[in-house]
Amino acid sequence: MQTQNELFVKMALDIWNAYINRADTLVNSLTDEQLQHEVSPGRNSGVYLVGHLATVHDGMLPLLGLGDKLYPELENIFLKNPDKSGLPKPSINEIREHWKTVNEKLALHFYKMNSDDWFQKHSAVSEEDFEKEPHRNKLNLVINRTNHLSGHYGQMVFLQASASE
Amino acid sequence: MQTQNELFVKMALDIWNAYINRADTLVNSLTDEQLQHEVSPGRNSGVYLVGHLATVHDGMLPLLGLGDKLYPELENIFLKNPDKSGLPKPSINEIREHWKTVNEKLALHFYKMNSDDWFQKHSAVSEEDFEKEPHRNKLNLVINRTNHLSGHYGQMVFLQASASE
Repeated sequence: MQTQNELFVKMALDIWNAYINRADTLVNSLTDEQLQHEVSPGRNSGVYLVGHLATVHDGMLPLLGLGDKLYPELENIFLKNPDKSGLPKPSINEIREHWKTVNEKLALHFYKMNSDDWFQKHSAVSEEDFEKEPHRNKLNLVINRTNHLSGHYGQMVFLQASASE
Repeated sequence: MQTQNELFVKMALDIWNAYINRADTLVNSLTDEQLQHEVSPGRNSGVYLVGHLATVHDGMLPLLGLGDKLYPELENIFLKNPDKSGLPKPSINEIREHWKTVNEKLALHFYKMNSDDWFQKHSAVSEEDFEKEPHRNKLNLVINRTNHLSGHYGQMVFLQASASE
């Protein structure tokens, strides 16, 4: 028998997984050359966005109490600075690898978490604030990050060849 | 005392409201001329995307059992056919108005719904399927539509003047 908590967790994780899979399929389908293009003239490149998503997802590990970041060095390149910062970036292959590794690491942890774990506070909220704002839990963080991912996914589809209209 | 259901409804509606507000602020900040541009070369125009979102959100009314669509005639233009279909579109002012009206209508209904209503099935699921798949409830539909909105919001930000980099 499924509890209400289990039901919520399924709802939130189903859509996280759906967008992770969609984005992963897209990234795998794009050539290195396509990934180097800007998603729209003057905007971020595909490479930057994949690196940005990998970095943000990596940051979920400590926020969810699942361990340290795997690639803390990416933060300066893909989070604190814009695409055209002039900072040297990892190679496209490394960025593809980071994206894959971080998401797999999260999936492995998520698989082991039980439904009550998800309603605990994430590490960026104090005990005191969490008492007043119990919605600031781990599951809520995933819901927020899913929408962050959807937004950039919506941009990265432009790297695909345009359908003739 | 907040129940688990109330907590989860708050989590899902908070992010729906956040993206509705973000998108609304963006649409209001764009001139009619900016809205007529394509979000990226060869892709949908801002006008089409606002019409598309208004149409999809309008479709939530019957799906959530909240009444009939306000503008069923938009479906053919903004859902079943692409931007360059050649079908005559409403004026930009009318599209802005539809976007606003539909979202306000939803907000009014959401305000009145209690947390148990949200865990009832939406109208596109049969009773039989819902028994086996209780996650296909009204709140789940909103979670899905929030991510749909985030994706198009991520595209519509390109209608803003590009920051110098």
